[in-house]
Amino acid sequence: MIIKNTYDVSDELLEELKHVSVSTASHTLVEMGYRNAYMQGILPMCFPEGQSSAVGRAVTLRFIPLREDLVKQQYESLTESPHRSALESIRKNDVLVIDTGSHMETGVIGDIFTRRLRYLGGQAIIVDGCIRDLIRIKDVNFPVFSKGIHGSAIPRTLMSVGFNEPIRCGGVGVVPGDIILADRDGVVAIPPQCIEEIVKSARDHDELLEKWIKLKLDEGASLHTHYPPNTEAKHEFEQWKKENGYV
Amino acid sequence: MIIKNTYDVSDELLEELKHVSVSTASHTLVEMGYRNAYMQGILPMCFPEGQSSAVGRAVTLRFIPLREDLVKQQYESLTESPHRSALESIRKNDVLVIDTGSHMETGVIGDIFTRRLRYLGGQAIIVDGCIRDLIRIKDVNFPVFSKGIHGSAIPRTLMSVGFNEPIRCGGVGVVPGDIILADRDGVVAIPPQCIEEIVKSARDHDELLEKWIKLKLDEGASLHTHYPPNTEAKHEFEQWKKENGYV
Amino acid sequence: MIIKNTYDVSDELLEELKHVSVSTASHTLVEMGYRNAYMQGILPMCFPEGQSSAVGRAVTLRFIPLREDLVKQQYESLTESPHRSALESIRKNDVLVIDTGSHMETGVIGDIFTRRLRYLGGQAIIVDGCIRDLIRIKDVNFPVFSKGIHGSAIPRTLMSVGFNEPIRCGGVGVVPGDIILADRDGVVAIPPQCIEEIVKSARDHDELLEKWIKLKLDEGASLHTHYPPNTEAKHEFEQWKKENGYV
Amino acid sequence: MIIKNTYDVSDELLEELKHVSVSTASHTLVEMGYRNAYMQGILPMCFPEGQSSAVGRAVTLRFIPLREDLVKQQYESLTESPHRSALESIRKNDVLVIDTGSHMETGVIGDIFTRRLRYLGGQAIIVDGCIRDLIRIKDVNFPVFSKGIHGSAIPRTLMSVGFNEPIRCGGVGVVPGDIILADRDGVVAIPPQCIEEIVKSARDHDELLEKWIKLKLDEGASLHTHYPPNTEAKHEFEQWKKENGYV
Amino acid sequence: MIIKNTYDVSDELLEELKHVSVSTASHTLVEMGYRNAYMQGILPMCFPEGQSSAVGRAVTLRFIPLREDLVKQQYESLTESPHRSALESIRKNDVLVIDTGSHMETGVIGDIFTRRLRYLGGQAIIVDGCIRDLIRIKDVNFPVFSKGIHGSAIPRTLMSVGFNEPIRCGGVGVVPGDIILADRDGVVAIPPQCIEEIVKSARDHDELLEKWIKLKLDEGASLHTHYPPNTEAKHEFEQWKKENGYV
Amino acid sequence: MIIKNTYDVSDELLEELKHVSVSTASHTLVEMGYRNAYMQGILPMCFPEGQSSAVGRAVTLRFIPLREDLVKQQYESLTESPHRSALESIRKNDVLVIDTGSHMETGVIGDIFTRRLRYLGGQAIIVDGCIRDLIRIKDVNFPVFSKGIHGSAIPRTLMSVGFNEPIRCGGVGVVPGDIILADRDGVVAIPPQCIEEIVKSARDHDELLEKWIKLKLDEGASLHTHYPPNTEAKHEFEQWKKENGYV
Repeated sequence: MIIKNTYDVSDELLEELKHVSVSTASHTLVEMGYRNAYMQGILPMCFPEGQSSAVGRAVTLRFIPLREDLVKQQYESLTESPHRSALESIRKNDVLVIDTGSHMETGVIGDIFTRRLRYLGGQAIIVDGCIRDLIRIKDVNFPVFSKGIHGSAIPRTLMSVGFNEPIRCGGVGVVPGDIILADRDGVVAIPPQCIEEIVKSARDHDELLEKWIKLKLDEGASLHTHYPPNTEAKHEFEQWKKENGYV
Repeated sequence: MIIKNTYDVSDELLEELKHVSVSTASHTLVEMGYRNAYMQGILPMCFPEGQSSAVGRAVTLRFIPLREDLVKQQYESLTESPHRSALESIRKNDVLVIDTGSHMETGVIGDIFTRRLRYLGGQAIIVDGCIRDLIRIKDVNFPVFSKGIHGSAIPRTLMSVGFNEPIRCGGVGVVPGDIILADRDGVVAIPPQCIEEIVKSARDHDELLEKWIKLKLDEGASLHTHYPPNTEAKHEFEQWKKENGYV
Repeated sequence: MIIKNTYDVSDELLEELKHVSVSTASHTLVEMGYRNAYMQGILPMCFPEGQSSAVGRAVTLRFIPLREDLVKQQYESLTESPHRSALESIRKNDVLVIDTGSHMETGVIGDIFTRRLRYLGGQAIIVDGCIRDLIRIKDVNFPVFSKGIHGSAIPRTLMSVGFNEPIRCGGVGVVPGDIILADRDGVVAIPPQCIEEIVKSARDHDELLEKWIKLKLDEGASLHTHYPPNTEAKHEFEQWKKENGYV
Repeated sequence: MIIKNTYDVSDELLEELKHVSVSTASHTLVEMGYRNAYMQGILPMCFPEGQSSAVGRAVTLRFIPLREDLVKQQYESLTESPHRSALESIRKNDVLVIDTGSHMETGVIGDIFTRRLRYLGGQAIIVDGCIRDLIRIKDVNFPVFSKGIHGSAIPRTLMSVGFNEPIRCGGVGVVPGDIILADRDGVVAIPPQCIEEIVKSARDHDELLEKWIKLKLDEGASLHTHYPPNTEAKHEFEQWKKENGYV
Repeated sequence: MIIKNTYDVSDELLEELKHVSVSTASHTLVEMGYRNAYMQGILPMCFPEGQSSAVGRAVTLRFIPLREDLVKQQYESLTESPHRSALESIRKNDVLVIDTGSHMETGVIGDIFTRRLRYLGGQAIIVDGCIRDLIRIKDVNFPVFSKGIHGSAIPRTLMSVGFNEPIRCGGVGVVPGDIILADRDGVVAIPPQCIEEIVKSARDHDELLEKWIKLKLDEGASLHTHYPPNTEAKHEFEQWKKENGYV
Repeated sequence: MIIKNTYDVSDELLEELKHVSVSTASHTLVEMGYRNAYMQGILPMCFPEGQSSAVGRAVTLRFIPLREDLVKQQYESLTESPHRSALESIRKNDVLVIDTGSHMETGVIGDIFTRRLRYLGGQAIIVDGCIRDLIRIKDVNFPVFSKGIHGSAIPRTLMSVGFNEPIRCGGVGVVPGDIILADRDGVVAIPPQCIEEIVKSARDHDELLEKWIKLKLDEGASLHTHYPPNTEAKHEFEQWKKENGYV
């Protein structure tokens, strides 16, 4: 039995997901029964000023510690290593998610790969391990997330073994086609069939209520009565919505 | 025998403590026989531009890994969980210090709690664990320190079990009423009876001498003679103070 | 709201629990919705030959990093420190569970404390941290579990701050009165109201089936058909039970 | 380009490999240019008394953190999950090598799976993660290696996603068909084309020399002259061989 | 046999090395057979705006956990501790590299030492451990790299035991006289005899080709054909160089 | 200023130290003001049955990560590498203490070195890192302590750089000539001038009292009155000594 996603998410829906924060999506997923969607310890190394989030479909790539004879064989061809194939397979609104096994002893992404991915319409690169050449990646000015930096390149210790398999990243299982949402708080991998509910829940509901709660807190309302709102506070909120033309 | 502080520190003294750096206070405490006051690995996630330090009295809060039946019971009431009670108990010049057991698998503080604490006169939040929704915490623009970020919220893995007990934070024992001093170098928990000496020592002494030593180093003085100053250098310093109207 | 257990377990039921393995109890608890009951990384340092398991009610004890003035005060009395009080409070069929915050820099239990606990009817000591003097603990020949060994004693780095509070141990929340089951595979903390079901489930069911499955596997049966048994294998099992006088 | 082994090793050669220690094989591989063959931190949890080593061809299995909807789907069939298929695919002289991503939060192998693997002619199980029910595995009395023990079972946190792919284990890349050699010192994964040289090197050479060196050391010979032997010591060794009928 | 460098690098060559990035140098060294030159986990804590890199000859300093009687003896003299001697020994274009054993429990460098080192012509300070008083180090505005921050000072837990010995830093062996290259991506320790080749390789070769590859990638060229360039792309590059006056 | 011991301990005193346990020595040292003498995480990998402890004077040895050119140079001579020189320098009642920087990626001691050290009168080997070939070390049957096992040998990743320098081992500073005491509870490094007091304190005092306390505990005495003994219990003890002919 192959572990795979069978649900497609439209580009329009991806666009709407950009208005949801990683923190909100992560919390909503726990409430929907998906306990393990936020990638632990994977933070933005480069994120363009003014961009609020990055969203796309997961293309996955997996590295293992190299074996000297097999990696030599792999490098004899310029076109056939899984990491190059994964990069060249990127389509509009894809996100490349890389499993190195939390390997901190070499970098697997530099500015050249980042540049190519951007050209192909990719939206972000997520690495459970290290990137290299952060200085030049910052020139490309593209969303790149990782656990750390290492100066050396792939052939120091790793070889790629496959792409578009289910992988691990930041302690989270990532299946090709998962929807990746990344912002300055980190990265969440969302099962595609959950996007609609997450977007709807964020849109209809939370934001107006949250805005009002913050207003009330700034006026001195207590957590006990206003977060979450008790019956009385809910009435107050309904009243406020009417008075301010939201209903 | 209850482990507790029995010494009160006035708001005026807290105000003076703001002029002492975490680094100076931490070093002075070691010299006074308190070896373990600096919290390891707890760094500013949000710190208002232009503010030099945050100072206040510790209110403590403790989480343990949740038990499914007990946490359900806890969430049935809006007013009685220890974490909400701790927050609502905050008074002017308090600092909330949270022990999650260095738990990195969920966030315990977001922008709503931060906003409430600020309203109540709290001065900072210190978490031995993760915060969430850093982006919105930055909108609140308030001193928040932690070991990391996680997208999910408390009920993913934790439940609160008590407040104003002695706790651990960053490898340091923190007793309610300890004085917390936090700046861009991190956080130190100070026994209240030590504040006066720390403030006095910083005020009378070190700063003028340190200023002069830096002047001398910039003129080429050697560490061997000037840091700390040997007898000759001390005379030189006394002379300089007279010549420059400090005595 | 105080986090506490409200269910009592009889000594008879505890006795029956001794026939359930930590592994079975841990798995059953996950199926009952309690995901986090097995203590990670806490293994037997001393376990009497011939004893299969240790069972008892949790008495909890908590240490924090010491503060020099407060620990001095604590040691001025021989009778009032929380760790001594916790030990002296032990009754028949209690297990002492100690939270040091995974502190590996000193030992909190030696042979003297172990000896006293045994005299009082305690069944085991579980430490999320280090023990000391393992050689002499082995002379006492009593079930003691920990994360490691350290030669030094409590006052090197720790002070006790309370007992019979909810604590953490091995990444598990432990509430006073939880039932502790420990064997050579480690330790599980069981909510008291779950014991009956765990004992019943182990007794009625699993053991005979498991015995039969092992017999079949040793004859070459496939996991696909016999573990868990499919419809046909279930009939086979019923047949076997009849033929062997189990029904 | 698929990363795979293309070299077959006969059962006879495997038999001979049993006379080589993990330590010797690991060192020889470094000298042959394979730097990374010894699996770090993976030690025997169960190893039959009197057996000196376990040898076989790697069958690989990979787990990732579970996703709730996909794991549910996986468990609806008894025959199709990758971990069951991997186990049932075991043939004589295979070794099952499991990549859980060093996941310490649940056990993936218990006594039932171990029993089945033994029946099918498997030689050992190697887990980069945890096993469960060590007590009953010891009844099976079969070579099982892991990083630790956890009481819970697979569905607590993991799901299997593939078998006979290249994987990671103990920081080593393992390709299906690699030859696994395991003894009380741990585990080494050997490229199949290297076996002949390793066996030959161990047989012809090292053992007699090493025996003689140990004899000399016990008589007081210095490392400087005898380990490795300098020109004079080599003559001495040749002489000794002649005198003792080895040549 | 003393482990030492015997090759001198001129100040002019050091100047040229400033144009090479840490990432390029680290990768070139792996290709030259030096696998382990990039220091893992040691990142800039302070780096002057506008400065692209820091370069100099390694002066090494080593700390061990203090012994109370010996450290007392050490502090009785102002001029003779190894850490003070190391600092005072700094000459133009030196870099101070400090081995604390990855000790995270006290800071070994503050603003005073940084100031003195800058006056003496030092180019950077690299610490495998913690610094203190980062706020004031930022006033000095000098390249300082470390693994973290701690508020306390040396005598809390450490004592210096030697300088200009071979040491460890970030998992890399550093021998006095090694050439240190540090930029925003971290730090690399280069054997002095390799500098010429690294500088030459970076100058002649890579930069123009890399510039052209980036141009081509931004026009949509594939990694498969252009990175590294295949035969056709190499011709294209030669053509481009001629057309643009580079040859 | 050279950090060194200036106090000699006689072989007779070493012999007496064998009657003190690591746990007692470690605790006494903390009371004497030496807080950091027990080596954390360094446990017996091989310890002869029937031997109670190992005692000797520290000869130290230090490794750093290898540099390819320098290690090649080192291996060109059989007699001059620091690790071989350290081994050959061993005299009666020495203990070899090895600092690898907690490096877990290769083994530095095998059965050959162990055999040589035993011949020369060495008493134990202590490694802050890994040993190799534990199976054959067990044939030598000699006290060897380490943090773990690795199959590979020194030249995989390390080179020795010096011996009889102050080093780190298990988080403890070790100075040549320190007295090493090792038993099944681990290892403690004792400043030589402290041996006499430790031996005396253990001999005169503790053992008889402790024997009596254990007797009383087995009769049901409380920790509150008998450990440590209060005034009344002290009288009781004096009485008991008289009655039993100890005074």
